[in-house]
Amino acid sequence: MKQLTNEYLNEAIEDCRPYAVNGNVNTSLPNFDDTLRDKLGVSIMTTDQSVYSAGNSTHCVPMQSTAKIIALMLALHDFGKERVFQTVGMEPTDEMFNSIGAIESHDKVKPFNPMVNAGAIVVCSLIKGGNNDNRFDRYLRFLKQMTNNNELAMDESVYQAEIANGARNRSLAYFMQSTGALIFDVEAALDLYFRINAVMMCCEDFSRVGLLLARDGVDPGGERLIPPHHLRTVKAIMMTSGMYNSSGEYAVDAGFPCKSGVSGSIIGVVSGRMGIGIVGPAIDKKGNSTAGGALIKKLSRDLKLNMFRTETL
Amino acid sequence: MKQLTNEYLNEAIEDCRPYAVNGNVNTSLPNFDDTLRDKLGVSIMTTDQSVYSAGNSTHCVPMQSTAKIIALMLALHDFGKERVFQTVGMEPTDEMFNSIGAIESHDKVKPFNPMVNAGAIVVCSLIKGGNNDNRFDRYLRFLKQMTNNNELAMDESVYQAEIANGARNRSLAYFMQSTGALIFDVEAALDLYFRINAVMMCCEDFSRVGLLLARDGVDPGGERLIPPHHLRTVKAIMMTSGMYNSSGEYAVDAGFPCKSGVSGSIIGVVSGRMGIGIVGPAIDKKGNSTAGGALIKKLSRDLKLNMFRTETL
Amino acid sequence: MKQLTNEYLNEAIEDCRPYAVNGNVNTSLPNFDDTLRDKLGVSIMTTDQSVYSAGNSTHCVPMQSTAKIIALMLALHDFGKERVFQTVGMEPTDEMFNSIGAIESHDKVKPFNPMVNAGAIVVCSLIKGGNNDNRFDRYLRFLKQMTNNNELAMDESVYQAEIANGARNRSLAYFMQSTGALIFDVEAALDLYFRINAVMMCCEDFSRVGLLLARDGVDPGGERLIPPHHLRTVKAIMMTSGMYNSSGEYAVDAGFPCKSGVSGSIIGVVSGRMGIGIVGPAIDKKGNSTAGGALIKKLSRDLKLNMFRTETL
Amino acid sequence: MKQLTNEYLNEAIEDCRPYAVNGNVNTSLPNFDDTLRDKLGVSIMTTDQSVYSAGNSTHCVPMQSTAKIIALMLALHDFGKERVFQTVGMEPTDEMFNSIGAIESHDKVKPFNPMVNAGAIVVCSLIKGGNNDNRFDRYLRFLKQMTNNNELAMDESVYQAEIANGARNRSLAYFMQSTGALIFDVEAALDLYFRINAVMMCCEDFSRVGLLLARDGVDPGGERLIPPHHLRTVKAIMMTSGMYNSSGEYAVDAGFPCKSGVSGSIIGVVSGRMGIGIVGPAIDKKGNSTAGGALIKKLSRDLKLNMFRTETL
Repeated sequence: MKQLTNEYLNEAIEDCRPYAVNGNVNTSLPNFDDTLRDKLGVSIMTTDQSVYSAGNSTHCVPMQSTAKIIALMLALHDFGKERVFQTVGMEPTDEMFNSIGAIESHDKVKPFNPMVNAGAIVVCSLIKGGNNDNRFDRYLRFLKQMTNNNELAMDESVYQAEIANGARNRSLAYFMQSTGALIFDVEAALDLYFRINAVMMCCEDFSRVGLLLARDGVDPGGERLIPPHHLRTVKAIMMTSGMYNSSGEYAVDAGFPCKSGVSGSIIGVVSGRMGIGIVGPAIDKKGNSTAGGALIKKLSRDLKLNMFRTETL
Repeated sequence: MKQLTNEYLNEAIEDCRPYAVNGNVNTSLPNFDDTLRDKLGVSIMTTDQSVYSAGNSTHCVPMQSTAKIIALMLALHDFGKERVFQTVGMEPTDEMFNSIGAIESHDKVKPFNPMVNAGAIVVCSLIKGGNNDNRFDRYLRFLKQMTNNNELAMDESVYQAEIANGARNRSLAYFMQSTGALIFDVEAALDLYFRINAVMMCCEDFSRVGLLLARDGVDPGGERLIPPHHLRTVKAIMMTSGMYNSSGEYAVDAGFPCKSGVSGSIIGVVSGRMGIGIVGPAIDKKGNSTAGGALIKKLSRDLKLNMFRTETL
Repeated sequence: MKQLTNEYLNEAIEDCRPYAVNGNVNTSLPNFDDTLRDKLGVSIMTTDQSVYSAGNSTHCVPMQSTAKIIALMLALHDFGKERVFQTVGMEPTDEMFNSIGAIESHDKVKPFNPMVNAGAIVVCSLIKGGNNDNRFDRYLRFLKQMTNNNELAMDESVYQAEIANGARNRSLAYFMQSTGALIFDVEAALDLYFRINAVMMCCEDFSRVGLLLARDGVDPGGERLIPPHHLRTVKAIMMTSGMYNSSGEYAVDAGFPCKSGVSGSIIGVVSGRMGIGIVGPAIDKKGNSTAGGALIKKLSRDLKLNMFRTETL
Repeated sequence: MKQLTNEYLNEAIEDCRPYAVNGNVNTSLPNFDDTLRDKLGVSIMTTDQSVYSAGNSTHCVPMQSTAKIIALMLALHDFGKERVFQTVGMEPTDEMFNSIGAIESHDKVKPFNPMVNAGAIVVCSLIKGGNNDNRFDRYLRFLKQMTNNNELAMDESVYQAEIANGARNRSLAYFMQSTGALIFDVEAALDLYFRINAVMMCCEDFSRVGLLLARDGVDPGGERLIPPHHLRTVKAIMMTSGMYNSSGEYAVDAGFPCKSGVSGSIIGVVSGRMGIGIVGPAIDKKGNSTAGGALIKKLSRDLKLNMFRTETL
């Protein structure tokens, strides 16, 4: 077992950076182009509040799908587990994250889980706060508190791009209205979804989200933001569905809950030990950072982070 | 947190037995009829070799799908992880365990994972041993060693019923041959699959399989039967795909690896702590024991078995 | 072979009316309730301009899906065959008329054909005329001319119901925008689609639409409204896809092009001989009038209307 | 309108031969290789028994899927329409001809129609005659009588290749057994299916099959082999499902019933006028001869063969 140090992380970054050649930068995002391909950064924050960073750890990207776990936390907080899962399922799917047919072909009323787009959109419809400005303010305050970063903000150009390219998500949202899953204002739910996708974060911010989950909801100031039982739910769903259609592979090869986004971001959670934040914009066909994913697996092996280990033996 | 005692288990059985009304006995199995509906038994074996049992813990049933994890262990042992997963995937699916369309519609060569029938059949094709009698003997010896039960045997009437009702599995097997996943003798793979489904076990046997996984491969005599890294793979796949199309729900509500069978059997694994064996023949539409599943969730809550807990806080 | 007379039609209506018990009235349409179940009317207009009617032939219903063939005629007229079929396919589908998964699972850009909702919505996007009031005026003028009925109009309550229940169609429309099939204003295409579904017609009106097709585009006044080659295209698509997921059955048992709507309306075309208009509001699960469908098949047998006959033998 | 002469056909062949570049020869068939790419032949036999031929009209190929209509005729003869369509549907499908998922995802018991492989296999199970040698003899006698060609025979190497590459069809057959559609001997049905695929024919043979259908069942000697109402059923199904997943396109662009095979063969039926036989081994991705399909469409335009024309205007 390796020791977690900045030096170790520097080496790990250089080991994994070459995997970027297997991926492509998602150029539908503003300011994302092929010059980002080789960027790779990581921050790890441990439960004793130590921070380790390496590589392009200060490169900020929009949260994209990593926002889905924040939205789920808030919805669980606002409505409780029973009500949330009347609206969205908790089962993994083999379909793409933006699939409609998956829902339709199973005669389902609910999206499969909160990690696919349809699921996240109905989860957004459950976040309280009145009008959308207030709901997004509340979301952002929650995120600022857990990351201890008051500068967090939505990028307007990313938000506008989400709207401009939003036909598929709009189709999903109206489909969920047609099944009865999305009973509140469809356009408001979509708009909040577009906004939370567009919040910019860098590696340390991502690692602090992971740390909150690793500490069962206690923020950097020692305040409990959300009850532990809700976070167990979030972590279990990250394990079965957090890494798009490679979630099974990451359960095997990483063995701890992760959530990725098509901006190349990954949040990792090692309960009781650490939160991990990674940015590596070159993504594979399923949507996961290729270099970032390699780094997640390497950290698991080197630092013995796999939950399916039997520590007592 | 409750204390694990026989008394506690007796109470737990009586609490959960009424859930049997939500299920039905799978009468396509020989000797399975509605008189089995209210049977519910459990055995728990801890890493310090204590055994706790309650209810109908000596009622034996055919392994059915719980055999899939034994076959996977042997195939990993015989061919290694890389070769096994060239033949079968490791991703959860939202389709039924006997679905062909799931594979076809994704233009897939490989079955989704070793926990669906198509996956288990190709896994069976990878078990070494020459002719089928020898391969099954080897399988049975492996199972006897881990359960410390030399009496284990295949039930001939269950085996014959598997053959008689085998059209769908035969269709799956030839489909996997057509994609190139099953390159060895199709009928031999099917026959081995039918045999392993027909081995009879009771709760203590099931719990000892769980214990082997909880002890990273060390059998009751202290011998390591299989390397720990292979068992981490098995446990991760049980977590994401072990409970048919309710695997996500069990990841959330139990939070430890489980595998169920349509005979109403469930194997649970709490790494470093215990193996759990349950028999409750009334199953729900997805294939899981209704009373047994309720018991798994109750044990998780009462004994704090959820892996997504943060013990150090 | 029977003779086509009013007396014959009266008997035919009474023979077929009992089939209504196998269907249900689509109560999502305004003013549609179970009292309409037993209504059944028919008008047949021959190429020599004789009209035969029987039953509830003056009962008006909204066109619903029978409007899809009018929209297709106009789009073919406005853009030509090549351009129209760059936007929509011409293949039958086994999926429901409002399916999205059918398109998604085949990685298709285009809806399967102009007879499913997604196809008709993109066809609507191709109808010329500037703003939607003008485009609908043009559509209605075209329909008035071919039916020789200047009273035709949209029912406001049906239109409002289409909007209120429009989530699934809106989802389909945005899906088609996301694939690139619907490049014009999505909400305008939807609105035109909702309007044309809401135009009220009775049996004689429906029969005159059939007659225009049977006369290769010549209207009651002798003017050619649309070139014959476009109408051959429309008739072929009616044959393979006009009767929802029973189109194959009607090709066998009727043997001439038909188009049905969930209001219980059916338009039949016997080239060179007659147009048929039927209203029978009790529909089966696939969307076809049960009594009306029985009548179509009876007319085919009695009057020898099946195109697959070999007349010269 | 062009005149049907050998000279006209020679020109038509040369016009259409270049379309072969858009296709590929199905090299899984014995003796099929790229040297066959430019072969294109046609024979047309009219109801007055005149024969017109051009191009490589004497090049023989295995019937492949064109055999499906012969099998359907025999099954209709042996069991009648009602019984046959209890076993197989009559609806077009958007799935590939060898799809299982199409059946599974619709919870269907029956294959969609007799033109897809699963449908043809269950149709084969309905052909009477005792053992398979006798059943195939009977099939071959029927085919010899309608083609007036006593030399017709199965090619042993094609039959062996069907068996060797038969995994997908075997999977389909056992799937149909599992749903209850195929209740007779599965391996016998498969074997008969493999045999009928392997019968060798050239253009004139194919045209005489078409002519039998065009003459409502009267063979060259004037004997009626099969009642007209069964042939109307066959022709209607050819129209909606005969050209694989381009059937809708051929209904529009040819407008008469056709059936194709992956050997590049096409049978066309113009009721009361002619039978058409074409061989052109380069096929497109859907399975249809590219040059042969172009020729079918050209013949329809030039000779006015489209059934959706309105002759009396």
